[in-house]
Amino acid sequence: MKLSARNQLEGRVTLVKAGPINAEVVIDAGGQTITSIISLDALEELGIKEGSTVTALFKASSVLLMA
Amino acid sequence: MKLSARNQLEGRVTLVKAGPINAEVVIDAGGQTITSIISLDALEELGIKEGSTVTALFKASSVLLMA
Amino acid sequence: MKLSARNQLEGRVTLVKAGPINAEVVIDAGGQTITSIISLDALEELGIKEGSTVTALFKASSVLLMA
Amino acid sequence: MKLSARNQLEGRVTLVKAGPINAEVVIDAGGQTITSIISLDALEELGIKEGSTVTALFKASSVLLMA
Amino acid sequence: MKLSARNQLEGRVTLVKAGPINAEVVIDAGGQTITSIISLDALEELGIKEGSTVTALFKASSVLLMA
Amino acid sequence: MKLSARNQLEGRVTLVKAGPINAEVVIDAGGQTITSIISLDALEELGIKEGSTVTALFKASSVLLMA
Repeated sequence: MKLSARNQLEGRVTLVKAGPINAEVVIDAGGQTITSIISLDALEELGIKEGSTVTALFKASSVLLMA
Repeated sequence: MKLSARNQLEGRVTLVKAGPINAEVVIDAGGQTITSIISLDALEELGIKEGSTVTALFKASSVLLMA
Repeated sequence: MKLSARNQLEGRVTLVKAGPINAEVVIDAGGQTITSIISLDALEELGIKEGSTVTALFKASSVLLMA
Repeated sequence: MKLSARNQLEGRVTLVKAGPINAEVVIDAGGQTITSIISLDALEELGIKEGSTVTALFKASSVLLMA
Repeated sequence: MKLSARNQLEGRVTLVKAGPINAEVVIDAGGQTITSIISLDALEELGIKEGSTVTALFKASSVLLMA
Repeated sequence: MKLSARNQLEGRVTLVKAGPINAEVVIDAGGQTITSIISLDALEELGIKEGSTVTALFKASSVLLMA
């Protein structure tokens, strides 16, 4: 199975902060820090915790550029 | 000036593909490949071309996780 | 492997329209019509064509409600 | 009045979970489960509760594909 | 009918640029310039052209801040 | 430094509501009301409070139209 998302960065979870609806997950992806906000339901269903290996996915259309 | 976007990756543009409305920009950010689709207007206004240094910005809420 | 996206609808591709940067893919998901715009690169890499079985994924935060 | 969103699925609300800033709304749209996260302000202004009839709207560009 | 989108700006269309998949629509909303990219299908279905009155809608979660 | 976001509206913050993960920021941009939801981390890092001058940024692709 392949995903259409042009951006797929694998990393290790360094921080999880759970709120009532959403959760923040910080990832170290080969030296780059990536932060994701997903639903609390998703956090629990995927069993994500500090130390987990995850892949961060985002569409090319969600990326702005500064130059 | 600071930006609220939790994800800010600096890199060098390796490929630009311009269409009639949108343009695709591929960036090498410290070994990670990031792809962005912005409007053609933005591409021209920022003067982005191969070799340009840019910062890719995206909100934490636009990142999905796979685990 | 599991994905954090709360919305995952499987269906069959009924239409593909390819442009220079993006491509539009229309899916029949159990009687519901879902339209996706992905990059042309992704379309080609995933080999999506009419009749393909695909899963449409989108985050809960990208859904507006009308009531 | 018409909306540009390519995806418009009508359904009945089966679950509402309200947080301090956001709220999660789960919808049964003809057998498909759709989850939306909207602001708490919007939830209250639209008067959405279990049993409400709502339309879930999302842009084609927010949909990823897996194949 | 009400929409959950926290941002709803009414204006007049000042420019339409149609591509093969997407179209760019520029709006003057009470002195503010708003640009939207929608699918070409949506542009045609809504009959949007220069001079049309439209409402631009976007979720609070899609807005970044710079300060 | 320039940003690719087609929509950049400067205004004054009229309301800040902080939750455990996200924060809602309401802005008066020349008579138009703009609402943004950013992460609490971003709110604190940018030092945004009522009366702050901020610029709201959003991509053209995140704007729907109603006509």
